[in-house]
Amino acid sequence: MTNEWPARVQQELQRFAEERDWPRYHTPRNLLLALVGEVGELAELYQWDPEEPPPADRVAEEIADVMIYLLRFADVTGIDVERAVADKIAYNATRFPKADR
Amino acid sequence: MTNEWPARVQQELQRFAEERDWPRYHTPRNLLLALVGEVGELAELYQWDPEEPPPADRVAEEIADVMIYLLRFADVTGIDVERAVADKIAYNATRFPKADR
Amino acid sequence: MTNEWPARVQQELQRFAEERDWPRYHTPRNLLLALVGEVGELAELYQWDPEEPPPADRVAEEIADVMIYLLRFADVTGIDVERAVADKIAYNATRFPKADR
Amino acid sequence: MTNEWPARVQQELQRFAEERDWPRYHTPRNLLLALVGEVGELAELYQWDPEEPPPADRVAEEIADVMIYLLRFADVTGIDVERAVADKIAYNATRFPKADR
Repeated sequence: MTNEWPARVQQELQRFAEERDWPRYHTPRNLLLALVGEVGELAELYQWDPEEPPPADRVAEEIADVMIYLLRFADVTGIDVERAVADKIAYNATRFPKADR
Repeated sequence: MTNEWPARVQQELQRFAEERDWPRYHTPRNLLLALVGEVGELAELYQWDPEEPPPADRVAEEIADVMIYLLRFADVTGIDVERAVADKIAYNATRFPKADR
Repeated sequence: MTNEWPARVQQELQRFAEERDWPRYHTPRNLLLALVGEVGELAELYQWDPEEPPPADRVAEEIADVMIYLLRFADVTGIDVERAVADKIAYNATRFPKADR
Repeated sequence: MTNEWPARVQQELQRFAEERDWPRYHTPRNLLLALVGEVGELAELYQWDPEEPPPADRVAEEIADVMIYLLRFADVTGIDVERAVADKIAYNATRFPKADR
Protein backbone atom coordinates (compact mmCIF):
# COMPACT_ATOMS: atom_id res chain seq x y z
CA MET A 1 0.00 0.00 0.00
CA THR A 2 1.52 3.29 -1.09
CA ASN A 3 0.86 6.71 0.33
CA GLU A 4 -0.50 7.94 -2.99
CA TRP A 5 -3.83 9.72 -3.43
CA PRO A 6 -6.03 6.67 -4.09
CA ALA A 7 -4.83 4.88 -0.94
CA ARG A 8 -5.12 8.03 1.17
CA VAL A 9 -8.67 8.71 -0.01
CA GLN A 10 -9.60 5.06 0.52
CA GLN A 11 -8.36 5.24 4.10
CA GLU A 12 -10.38 8.39 4.65
CA LEU A 13 -13.50 6.78 3.15
CA GLN A 14 -13.05 3.67 5.26
CA ARG A 15 -12.79 5.74 8.45
CA PHE A 16 -15.83 7.79 7.34
CA ALA A 17 -17.81 4.58 6.84
CA GLU A 18 -16.70 3.06 10.13
CA GLU A 19 -17.69 6.17 12.06
CA ARG A 20 -21.22 5.73 10.69
CA ASP A 21 -21.54 1.94 11.03
CA TRP A 22 -21.70 1.66 7.25
CA PRO A 23 -19.16 -1.09 6.49
CA ARG A 24 -21.85 -3.78 6.71
CA TYR A 25 -23.61 -2.04 3.78
CA HIS A 26 -20.44 -1.67 1.75
CA THR A 27 -20.50 -4.99 -0.06
CA PRO A 28 -19.18 -5.11 -3.64
CA ARG A 29 -22.65 -5.40 -5.16
CA ASN A 30 -24.12 -2.63 -3.02
CA LEU A 31 -21.28 -0.28 -3.92
CA LEU A 32 -21.58 -1.28 -7.57
CA LEU A 33 -25.28 -0.40 -7.64
CA ALA A 34 -24.46 2.90 -5.89
CA LEU A 35 -21.83 3.57 -8.56
CA VAL A 36 -24.43 2.90 -11.28
CA GLY A 37 -26.75 5.38 -9.59
CA GLU A 38 -24.10 8.10 -9.58
CA VAL A 39 -23.13 7.47 -13.22
CA GLY A 40 -26.84 7.89 -13.96
CA GLU A 41 -26.84 11.28 -12.25
CA LEU A 42 -23.81 12.32 -14.30
CA ALA A 43 -25.59 11.19 -17.48
CA GLU A 44 -28.66 13.24 -16.56
CA LEU A 45 -26.54 16.41 -16.58
CA TYR A 46 -25.58 15.77 -20.21
CA GLN A 47 -28.75 14.24 -21.60
CA TRP A 48 -30.55 16.96 -23.52
CA ASP A 49 -28.24 19.55 -25.03
CA PRO A 50 -24.92 18.50 -26.57
CA GLU A 51 -23.98 22.16 -27.06
CA GLU A 52 -24.65 23.41 -23.54
CA PRO A 53 -22.16 22.25 -20.89
CA PRO A 54 -23.85 21.69 -17.52
CA PRO A 55 -22.84 23.84 -14.50
CA ALA A 56 -19.27 23.00 -13.41
CA ASP A 57 -20.22 22.60 -9.74
CA ARG A 58 -22.82 19.97 -10.63
CA VAL A 59 -20.37 18.08 -12.84
CA ALA A 60 -17.71 18.25 -10.10
CA GLU A 61 -20.11 16.84 -7.53
CA GLU A 62 -21.17 13.91 -9.72
CA ILE A 63 -17.58 13.11 -10.74
CA ALA A 64 -16.72 13.10 -7.03
CA ASP A 65 -19.59 10.73 -6.24
CA VAL A 66 -18.55 8.30 -8.97
CA MET A 67 -14.90 8.50 -7.85
CA ILE A 68 -15.80 7.95 -4.19
CA TYR A 69 -17.80 4.81 -4.92
CA LEU A 70 -15.19 3.54 -7.39
CA LEU A 71 -12.37 3.92 -4.84
CA ARG A 72 -14.48 2.36 -2.11
CA PHE A 73 -15.46 -0.50 -4.44
CA ALA A 74 -11.79 -1.16 -5.26
CA ASP A 75 -10.95 -1.09 -1.56
CA VAL A 76 -13.54 -3.66 -0.50
CA THR A 77 -12.75 -5.91 -3.48
CA GLY A 78 -9.03 -5.71 -2.68
CA ILE A 79 -7.97 -4.27 -6.04
CA ASP A 80 -4.87 -2.04 -6.14
CA VAL A 81 -6.12 0.89 -8.24
CA GLU A 82 -2.71 2.37 -9.03
CA ARG A 83 -1.39 -0.94 -10.27
CA ALA A 84 -4.58 -1.81 -12.19
CA VAL A 85 -4.50 1.54 -14.03
CA ALA A 86 -0.77 1.29 -14.79
CA ASP A 87 -1.22 -2.27 -16.08
CA LYS A 88 -4.18 -1.28 -18.27
CA ILE A 89 -2.40 1.71 -19.80
CA ALA A 90 0.61 -0.52 -20.57
CA TYR A 91 -1.68 -3.12 -22.13
CA ASN A 92 -3.53 -0.49 -24.17
CA ALA A 93 -0.18 0.71 -25.53
CA THR A 94 0.34 -2.76 -27.04
CA ARG A 95 -3.18 -2.84 -28.51
CA PHE A 96 -3.26 0.61 -30.07
CA PRO A 97 -0.15 1.61 -32.01
CA LYS A 98 0.73 5.28 -32.24
CA ALA A 99 -0.54 7.16 -35.27
CA ASP A 100 1.85 7.85 -38.12
CA ARG A 101 3.19 11.39 -38.18
CA MET B 1 -46.06 -1.60 -38.04
CA THR B 2 -48.41 -3.67 -35.98
CA ASN B 3 -51.06 -2.48 -33.60
CA GLU B 4 -49.36 -4.20 -30.68
CA TRP B 5 -48.52 -2.51 -27.37
CA PRO B 6 -44.98 -1.29 -28.23
CA ALA B 7 -46.15 0.44 -31.42
CA ARG B 8 -49.19 1.96 -29.69
CA VAL B 9 -47.11 3.33 -26.83
CA GLN B 10 -44.52 4.64 -29.27
CA GLN B 11 -47.22 6.51 -31.17
CA GLU B 12 -48.50 7.99 -27.92
CA LEU B 13 -44.98 9.03 -26.89
CA GLN B 14 -44.32 10.59 -30.28
CA ARG B 15 -47.51 12.64 -30.07
CA PHE B 16 -46.65 13.60 -26.48
CA ALA B 17 -43.22 14.80 -27.64
CA GLU B 18 -44.60 16.69 -30.63
CA GLU B 19 -47.14 18.53 -28.48
CA ARG B 20 -44.23 19.84 -26.39
CA ASP B 21 -41.78 20.62 -29.21
CA TRP B 22 -39.47 17.92 -27.89
CA PRO B 23 -38.62 15.90 -31.03
CA ARG B 24 -35.54 18.07 -31.70
CA TYR B 25 -34.17 16.87 -28.34
CA HIS B 26 -35.01 13.24 -28.99
CA THR B 27 -31.84 12.20 -30.76
CA PRO B 28 -30.54 8.66 -30.20
CA ARG B 29 -27.67 9.79 -27.97
CA ASN B 30 -29.84 12.12 -25.91
CA LEU B 31 -32.42 9.39 -25.32
CA LEU B 32 -29.64 6.92 -24.53
CA LEU B 33 -28.21 9.22 -21.84
CA ALA B 34 -31.73 9.71 -20.47
CA LEU B 35 -32.14 5.92 -20.37
CA VAL B 36 -28.86 5.63 -18.45
CA GLY B 37 -30.14 8.21 -15.97
CA GLU B 38 -33.34 6.25 -15.36
CA VAL B 39 -31.48 2.94 -14.97
CA GLY B 40 -29.38 4.76 -12.38
CA GLU B 41 -32.53 5.76 -10.47
CA LEU B 42 -33.71 2.15 -10.53
CA ALA B 43 -30.32 1.01 -9.22
CA GLU B 44 -30.51 3.53 -6.36
CA LEU B 45 -33.69 1.85 -5.12
CA TYR B 46 -31.84 -1.44 -4.74
CA GLN B 47 -28.41 -0.27 -3.67
CA TRP B 48 -28.20 -0.77 0.09
CA ASP B 49 -30.31 -3.65 1.36
CA PRO B 50 -30.56 -6.92 -0.62
CA GLU B 51 -33.20 -8.20 1.81
CA GLU B 52 -35.55 -5.22 1.77
CA PRO B 53 -37.54 -4.75 -1.45
CA PRO B 54 -38.09 -1.07 -2.23
CA PRO B 55 -41.64 0.36 -2.31
CA ALA B 56 -43.57 -1.06 -5.29
CA ASP B 57 -44.79 2.34 -6.46
CA ARG B 58 -41.20 3.61 -6.70
CA VAL B 59 -40.10 0.51 -8.60
CA ALA B 60 -43.09 0.81 -10.94
CA GLU B 61 -42.27 4.44 -11.70
CA GLU B 62 -38.61 3.73 -12.49
CA ILE B 63 -39.45 0.70 -14.64
CA ALA B 64 -41.90 2.91 -16.52
CA ASP B 65 -39.26 5.60 -17.06
CA VAL B 66 -36.75 3.07 -18.40
CA MET B 67 -39.43 1.52 -20.65
CA ILE B 68 -40.57 4.89 -21.98
CA TYR B 69 -37.05 5.93 -22.99
CA LEU B 70 -36.28 2.48 -24.40
CA LEU B 71 -39.40 2.52 -26.60
CA ARG B 72 -38.72 6.10 -27.68
CA PHE B 73 -35.09 5.22 -28.44
CA ALA B 74 -36.17 2.26 -30.58
CA ASP B 75 -38.66 4.49 -32.38
CA VAL B 76 -36.17 7.20 -33.34
CA THR B 77 -33.51 4.64 -34.31
CA GLY B 78 -36.04 2.80 -36.48
CA ILE B 79 -35.77 -0.55 -34.69
CA ASP B 80 -38.81 -2.85 -34.63
CA VAL B 81 -38.93 -3.85 -30.96
CA GLU B 82 -41.29 -6.80 -31.38
CA ARG B 83 -39.17 -8.31 -34.09
CA ALA B 84 -35.88 -7.60 -32.31
CA VAL B 85 -37.12 -9.31 -29.14
CA ALA B 86 -38.52 -12.31 -31.02
CA ASP B 87 -35.27 -12.67 -32.98
CA LYS B 88 -33.17 -12.47 -29.83
CA ILE B 89 -35.24 -15.05 -27.96
CA ALA B 90 -34.96 -17.41 -30.94
CA TYR B 91 -31.21 -16.85 -31.08
CA ASN B 92 -30.84 -17.42 -27.34
CA ALA B 93 -32.67 -20.74 -27.72
CA THR B 94 -29.88 -21.90 -30.03
CA ARG B 95 -27.15 -20.69 -27.63
CA PHE B 96 -28.54 -22.13 -24.40
CA PRO B 97 -29.79 -25.72 -24.59
CA LYS B 98 -32.53 -26.79 -22.20
CA ALA B 99 -31.46 -28.40 -18.96
CA ASP B 100 -31.67 -32.17 -18.66
CA ARG B 101 -34.67 -33.39 -16.72
CA MET C 1 -52.95 -10.03 -16.45
CA THR C 2 -53.80 -9.06 -19.99
CA ASN C 3 -52.91 -10.85 -23.16
CA GLU C 4 -50.94 -7.85 -24.41
CA TRP C 5 -47.37 -8.03 -25.72
CA PRO C 6 -45.51 -7.41 -22.42
CA ALA C 7 -47.40 -10.19 -20.62
CA ARG C 8 -47.00 -12.61 -23.53
CA VAL C 9 -43.25 -11.97 -23.77
CA GLN C 10 -42.91 -12.28 -19.99
CA GLN C 11 -44.62 -15.67 -20.10
CA GLU C 12 -42.29 -16.77 -22.87
CA LEU C 13 -39.24 -15.57 -20.92
CA GLN C 14 -40.41 -17.30 -17.78
CA ARG C 15 -40.83 -20.60 -19.63
CA PHE C 16 -37.44 -20.09 -21.28
CA ALA C 17 -35.85 -19.59 -17.84
CA GLU C 18 -37.63 -22.56 -16.29
CA GLU C 19 -36.50 -24.88 -19.08
CA ARG C 20 -32.90 -23.95 -18.22
CA ASP C 21 -33.18 -23.98 -14.40
CA TRP C 22 -32.49 -20.24 -14.39
CA PRO C 23 -35.25 -18.89 -12.11
CA ARG C 24 -33.00 -19.23 -9.03
CA TYR C 25 -30.61 -16.76 -10.70
CA HIS C 26 -33.36 -14.34 -11.68
CA THR C 27 -33.50 -12.26 -8.52
CA PRO C 28 -34.29 -8.54 -8.85
CA ARG C 29 -30.71 -7.48 -8.16
CA ASN C 30 -29.20 -10.03 -10.53
CA LEU C 31 -31.54 -8.97 -13.33
CA LEU C 32 -30.86 -5.32 -12.56
CA LEU C 33 -27.08 -5.83 -12.90
CA ALA C 34 -27.70 -7.75 -16.14
CA LEU C 35 -29.80 -4.82 -17.39
CA VAL C 36 -26.96 -2.42 -16.53
CA GLY C 37 -24.60 -4.64 -18.51
CA GLU C 38 -26.82 -4.53 -21.60
CA VAL C 39 -27.32 -0.76 -21.37
CA GLY C 40 -23.52 -0.57 -21.29
CA GLU C 41 -23.32 -2.57 -24.53
CA LEU C 42 -25.85 -0.22 -26.13
CA ALA C 43 -23.79 2.79 -24.98
CA GLU C 44 -20.63 1.28 -26.50
CA LEU C 45 -22.30 1.29 -29.93
CA TYR C 46 -22.79 5.06 -29.70
CA GLN C 47 -19.69 6.14 -27.84
CA TRP C 48 -17.28 7.54 -30.40
CA ASP C 49 -18.98 9.11 -33.39
CA PRO C 50 -22.16 11.17 -32.96
CA GLU C 51 -22.52 11.44 -36.73
CA GLU C 52 -22.21 7.76 -37.62
CA PRO C 53 -25.18 5.59 -36.63
CA PRO C 54 -24.09 2.09 -35.61
CA PRO C 55 -25.22 -0.96 -37.66
CA ALA C 56 -28.99 -1.48 -37.26
CA ASP C 57 -28.65 -5.18 -36.47
CA ARG C 58 -26.31 -4.43 -33.57
CA VAL C 59 -28.65 -1.74 -32.21
CA ALA C 60 -31.63 -4.09 -32.57
CA GLU C 61 -29.85 -6.83 -30.64
CA GLU C 62 -28.88 -4.54 -27.75
CA ILE C 63 -32.36 -2.98 -27.56
CA ALA C 64 -33.75 -6.52 -27.41
CA ASP C 65 -31.37 -7.47 -24.60
CA VAL C 66 -32.31 -4.42 -22.55
CA MET C 67 -36.04 -5.06 -23.20
CA ILE C 68 -35.77 -8.74 -22.27
CA TYR C 69 -34.11 -7.99 -18.91
CA LEU C 70 -36.48 -5.10 -18.23
CA LEU C 71 -39.56 -7.26 -18.83
CA ARG C 72 -38.10 -10.11 -16.78
CA PHE C 73 -37.20 -7.68 -13.98
CA ALA C 74 -40.76 -6.30 -13.94
CA ASP C 75 -42.11 -9.84 -13.86
CA VAL C 76 -40.08 -11.01 -10.87
CA THR C 77 -40.72 -7.77 -8.98
CA GLY C 78 -44.46 -8.07 -9.65
CA ILE C 79 -44.82 -4.75 -11.49
CA ASP C 80 -47.54 -4.41 -14.16
CA VAL C 81 -45.60 -2.79 -17.00
CA GLU C 82 -48.63 -1.70 -19.02
CA ARG C 83 -50.19 0.01 -16.04
CA ALA C 84 -46.90 1.55 -14.85
CA VAL C 85 -46.27 3.07 -18.29
CA ALA C 86 -49.84 4.35 -18.65
CA ASP C 87 -49.70 5.89 -15.17
CA LYS C 88 -46.35 7.55 -15.86
CA ILE C 89 -47.46 9.04 -19.17
CA ALA C 90 -50.59 10.41 -17.47
CA TYR C 91 -48.47 11.88 -14.68
CA ASN C 92 -46.01 13.40 -17.15
CA ALA C 93 -48.94 15.09 -18.93
CA THR C 94 -49.69 16.96 -15.70
CA ARG C 95 -46.03 17.93 -15.19
CA PHE C 96 -45.26 19.16 -18.71
CA PRO C 97 -47.92 21.41 -20.27
CA LYS C 98 -48.25 21.41 -24.05
CA ALA C 99 -46.29 24.07 -25.92
CA ASP C 100 -48.14 27.15 -27.16
CA ARG C 101 -48.94 27.08 -30.83
CA MET D 1 -2.43 21.48 -10.90
CA THR D 2 -0.71 19.33 -8.34
CA ASN D 3 1.70 16.50 -8.95
CA GLU D 4 -0.64 14.00 -7.27
CA TRP D 5 -1.73 10.70 -8.83
CA PRO D 6 -4.89 11.92 -10.60
CA ALA D 7 -3.04 14.75 -12.37
CA ARG D 8 -0.12 12.50 -13.31
CA VAL D 9 -2.39 9.83 -14.76
CA GLN D 10 -4.41 12.47 -16.61
CA GLN D 11 -1.22 13.81 -18.20
CA GLU D 12 -0.25 10.29 -19.23
CA LEU D 13 -3.72 9.66 -20.69
CA GLN D 14 -3.65 12.94 -22.57
CA ARG D 15 -0.27 12.12 -24.12
CA PHE D 16 -1.52 8.61 -24.94
CA ALA D 17 -4.55 10.10 -26.71
CA GLU D 18 -2.50 12.70 -28.58
CA GLU D 19 -0.08 10.07 -29.86
CA ARG D 20 -3.07 8.28 -31.45
CA ASP D 21 -4.95 11.32 -32.77
CA TRP D 22 -7.77 10.56 -30.34
CA PRO D 23 -8.41 13.97 -28.71
CA ARG D 24 -11.06 14.84 -31.34
CA TYR D 25 -13.04 11.81 -30.12
CA HIS D 26 -12.61 12.67 -26.45
CA THR D 27 -15.61 14.94 -26.02
CA PRO D 28 -17.43 14.90 -22.68
CA ARG D 29 -20.41 12.98 -24.06
CA ASN D 30 -18.26 10.44 -25.89
CA LEU D 31 -16.20 9.77 -22.78
CA LEU D 32 -19.37 9.59 -20.69
CA LEU D 33 -20.85 6.92 -22.97
CA ALA D 34 -17.54 5.04 -22.85
CA LEU D 35 -17.66 5.22 -19.04
CA VAL D 36 -21.20 3.81 -19.10
CA GLY D 37 -19.95 0.96 -21.28
CA GLU D 38 -17.17 0.09 -18.83
CA VAL D 39 -19.50 0.27 -15.81
CA GLY D 40 -21.68 -2.18 -17.73
CA GLU D 41 -18.75 -4.56 -18.12
CA LEU D 42 -18.06 -4.33 -14.39
CA ALA D 43 -21.74 -5.07 -13.67
CA GLU D 44 -21.62 -8.14 -15.91
CA LEU D 45 -18.91 -9.65 -13.71
CA TYR D 46 -21.23 -9.47 -10.71
CA GLN D 47 -24.60 -10.19 -12.28
CA TRP D 48 -25.41 -13.81 -11.55
CA ASP D 49 -23.92 -15.09 -8.31
CA PRO D 50 -23.83 -12.87 -5.20
CA GLU D 51 -21.76 -15.51 -3.36
CA GLU D 52 -19.05 -16.07 -5.98
CA PRO D 53 -16.57 -13.19 -6.37
CA PRO D 54 -15.43 -12.83 -9.99
CA PRO D 55 -11.73 -13.35 -10.88
CA ALA D 56 -9.59 -10.55 -9.40
CA ASP D 57 -7.77 -9.87 -12.67
CA ARG D 58 -11.09 -9.26 -14.46
CA VAL D 59 -12.31 -6.96 -11.70
CA ALA D 60 -8.99 -5.07 -11.72
CA GLU D 61 -9.19 -4.55 -15.49
CA GLU D 62 -12.76 -3.20 -15.38
CA ILE D 63 -12.02 -0.92 -12.41
CA ALA D 64 -9.05 0.40 -14.37
CA ASP D 65 -11.20 1.05 -17.44
CA VAL D 66 -13.81 2.95 -15.41
CA MET D 67 -11.06 4.94 -13.64
CA ILE D 68 -9.30 5.78 -16.91
CA TYR D 69 -12.46 7.17 -18.52
CA LEU D 70 -13.47 8.97 -15.34
CA LEU D 71 -10.09 10.71 -15.07
CA ARG D 72 -10.11 11.55 -18.78
CA PHE D 73 -13.68 12.86 -18.50
CA ALA D 74 -12.70 15.09 -15.57
CA ASP D 75 -9.70 16.34 -17.52
CA VAL D 76 -11.65 17.37 -20.64
CA THR D 77 -14.45 18.93 -18.57
CA GLY D 78 -11.90 20.88 -16.53
CA ILE D 79 -12.87 19.46 -13.14
CA ASP D 80 -10.20 19.20 -10.42
CA VAL D 81 -10.77 15.66 -9.16
CA GLU D 82 -8.78 16.01 -5.95
CA ARG D 83 -10.67 19.12 -4.95
CA ALA D 84 -14.07 17.74 -6.01
CA VAL D 85 -13.56 14.60 -3.90
CA ALA D 86 -12.30 16.55 -0.87
CA ASP D 87 -15.24 18.95 -1.13
CA LYS D 88 -17.74 16.10 -1.41
CA ILE D 89 -16.34 14.21 1.58
CA ALA D 90 -16.48 17.42 3.65
CA TYR D 91 -20.06 18.01 2.53
CA ASN D 92 -21.05 14.40 3.31
CA ALA D 93 -19.64 14.83 6.82
CA THR D 94 -22.20 17.60 7.40
CA ARG D 95 -25.04 15.49 5.98
CA PHE D 96 -24.38 12.25 7.82
CA PRO D 97 -23.58 12.59 11.54
CA LYS D 98 -21.39 9.97 13.14
CA ALA D 99 -23.13 7.04 14.80
CA ASP D 100 -23.47 7.06 18.59
CA ARG D 101 -20.98 4.85 20.33
